Amino acid sequence: MPKDGPKCLKDFAVGDWMRTGEIEVTRESLHAFAKEFDPQAIHLDEAAAKASFFGELVGSGWHAAALTMKLMVESRPLGSTPIIGLEVHQFRFEAPLKPGDRLHVEAMVIGTRQSGGSKRGYLTLALWTRRSDGAAILTQQWTLLMPTRG
Amino acid sequence: MPKDGPKCLKDFAVGDWMRTGEIEVTRESLHAFAKEFDPQAIHLDEAAAKASFFGELVGSGWHAAALTMKLMVESRPLGSTPIIGLEVHQFRFEAPLKPGDRLHVEAMVIGTRQSGGSKRGYLTLALWTRRSDGAAILTQQWTLLMPTRG
Repeated sequence: MPKDGPKCLKDFAVGDWMRTGEIEVTRESLHAFAKEFDPQAIHLDEAAAKASFFGELVGSGWHAAALTMKLMVESRPLGSTPIIGLEVHQFRFEAPLKPGDRLHVEAMVIGTRQSGGSKRGYLTLALWTRRSDGAAILTQQWTLLMPTRG
Repeated sequence: MPKDGPKCLKDFAVGDWMRTGEIEVTRESLHAFAKEFDPQAIHLDEAAAKASFFGELVGSGWHAAALTMKLMVESRPLGSTPIIGLEVHQFRFEAPLKPGDRLHVEAMVIGTRQSGGSKRGYLTLALWTRRSDGAAILTQQWTLLMPTRG
């Protein structure tokens, strides 16, 4: 996928694929996010987490979602065109986020659609947020608002 | 919806409704979230934001999602049972998050389903994240993992 300058819908085709950079998730960052946005014992209390469904301390799924956005933004798949999300579909927490996970995102264009005769269109991406062992922890589809022409 | 003690699937019925507390979104908190997770000019650079699709500085949609989780967790709709998300559907950014927005979430049970003969089931909620003028900025449906019995 293109990296530089403003991009528009015609720069993309179904099947285009990208891989972002990586980020390592520290125990401290998991704690800080959970404390602010998802203050549940499964994310903050080691003993309670051990007795839970997960059997260990896990991060917030919404932290995984936010890190997915961070990795995508930093990879600039639309060049200088902003990433403006409209809808998310098929969003699934596949596995919990854990301290020490090293994440990257793979994304593939699965749709491009012009909005009637207008200058706006929609780019649909399938995203896989993966650990370094290849397992996906979060999968989703984004519909982004895009200019149809440069 | 119930507030105290561990809750299970049979404590809920389609049509049950809740409203969370409120949170005010400051310019500083929008900036901090965007800087960490969504470092785009539309969220961080006043001049670039003015020239953009939005015409003004707006927050990250993923910040709105994280604040929705915060409001839900703090309202304890499942009592002491953890809120474990499996899937999100029909997730739509209805309007941008803006400095000074005062948000709350309304949620309604739209499905309860036992998983075969197992002790686990699924609770499905429709959620509306609203400003104080009533307009929804984010709508979505959550499928949560729940114990079927206490």
